[in-house]
Amino acid sequence: MVVTETRELATSGQGDIKDLTTLVAELLARSRLSAGLATVAVVGSTAGVTTIEFEPGAVADFGAMFERLAPRSGDYEHHARWGDDNGSSHVRAALLGPSLSVPFSKRTLCLGTWQQIVLVELDTRARRREIVLQLLGE
Amino acid sequence: MVVTETRELATSGQGDIKDLTTLVAELLARSRLSAGLATVAVVGSTAGVTTIEFEPGAVADFGAMFERLAPRSGDYEHHARWGDDNGSSHVRAALLGPSLSVPFSKRTLCLGTWQQIVLVELDTRARRREIVLQLLGE
Amino acid sequence: MVVTETRELATSGQGDIKDLTTLVAELLARSRLSAGLATVAVVGSTAGVTTIEFEPGAVADFGAMFERLAPRSGDYEHHARWGDDNGSSHVRAALLGPSLSVPFSKRTLCLGTWQQIVLVELDTRARRREIVLQLLGE
Repeated sequence: MVVTETRELATSGQGDIKDLTTLVAELLARSRLSAGLATVAVVGSTAGVTTIEFEPGAVADFGAMFERLAPRSGDYEHHARWGDDNGSSHVRAALLGPSLSVPFSKRTLCLGTWQQIVLVELDTRARRREIVLQLLGE
Repeated sequence: MVVTETRELATSGQGDIKDLTTLVAELLARSRLSAGLATVAVVGSTAGVTTIEFEPGAVADFGAMFERLAPRSGDYEHHARWGDDNGSSHVRAALLGPSLSVPFSKRTLCLGTWQQIVLVELDTRARRREIVLQLLGE
Repeated sequence: MVVTETRELATSGQGDIKDLTTLVAELLARSRLSAGLATVAVVGSTAGVTTIEFEPGAVADFGAMFERLAPRSGDYEHHARWGDDNGSSHVRAALLGPSLSVPFSKRTLCLGTWQQIVLVELDTRARRREIVLQLLGE
């Protein structure tokens, strides 16, 4: 059995991280599924999905790592070709990945207490994001 | 219901990226599945799968990031132990990951217009790659 | 059909990598499933799951890459806020991701000979880890 829903979410641009855990847990609670796989995916190539301890320190550290790895003001061929300024966003997003799958069992997501499912905005400007939430199971 | 198929693909070595989106979309079109999860995986430990805006600028930028992160000509213990030259490939591939799962709904992959599913060749030489395409759904 | 099991595993701290391939293959062998998706996930926000050629050289190289990317002794806001010392662990784990999904077909995991599913311990201290193994298929 498959349940698929989409959500829209506004972000403030590079460095913004949104906690999606409650959205997924609520979808699971409303479904009749007991065990299976929950997938969260973001539509677009300048954002990603992962888990992190969702507290401002770890979120800032995660952004600082990306800034070392692919600096926002670095030289990018994507800029030269398209007159764009978000080469750092594309590189970071391709490495992070656009989706995450987490098992659930006994109607509960298999996550730690300090482990949240998050949308990671990597684009250089505020965006409206389409998030796909999907439960696959029985 | 599960549909699993494999494809063989030739790559030209480190930095080569192949667009797999059409392969996945065609498999979905041929299947009788309406909603579920599409998984693309590469067999082997020196390549990966992700999404990127598939244009030469972003592809080059992605390779340049990997070269900063794990330089091809760096010192690797894998080289010392095995007389190999692809330590950078193993490190990059383990970080990127060998598989990607993308939800589909209403017989359509949940991807953005400028978001393609790609095989990322990370090995130092040309390879023939075995790609696994799998649809799981109803 | 869904099969979900958990395993406990002791790790020795940052840099320790455990081969989980046999655990997954044994679960598949005991199940009645022929084709589908195998997911391995770690509970917690300071470890990850990926595939790598599981030999000491590549494992050491992978750790050295993480040390360049997010040095253990670097400055982290997570430390300042929580009196903790594992900011590097959170950053690395969020980038690597807590789960991996690998297709199986004809009762066999779609992996290469030198490609193992591994738990990557990223925390700064020894941990007991809860691993979730899940098979989804028919």
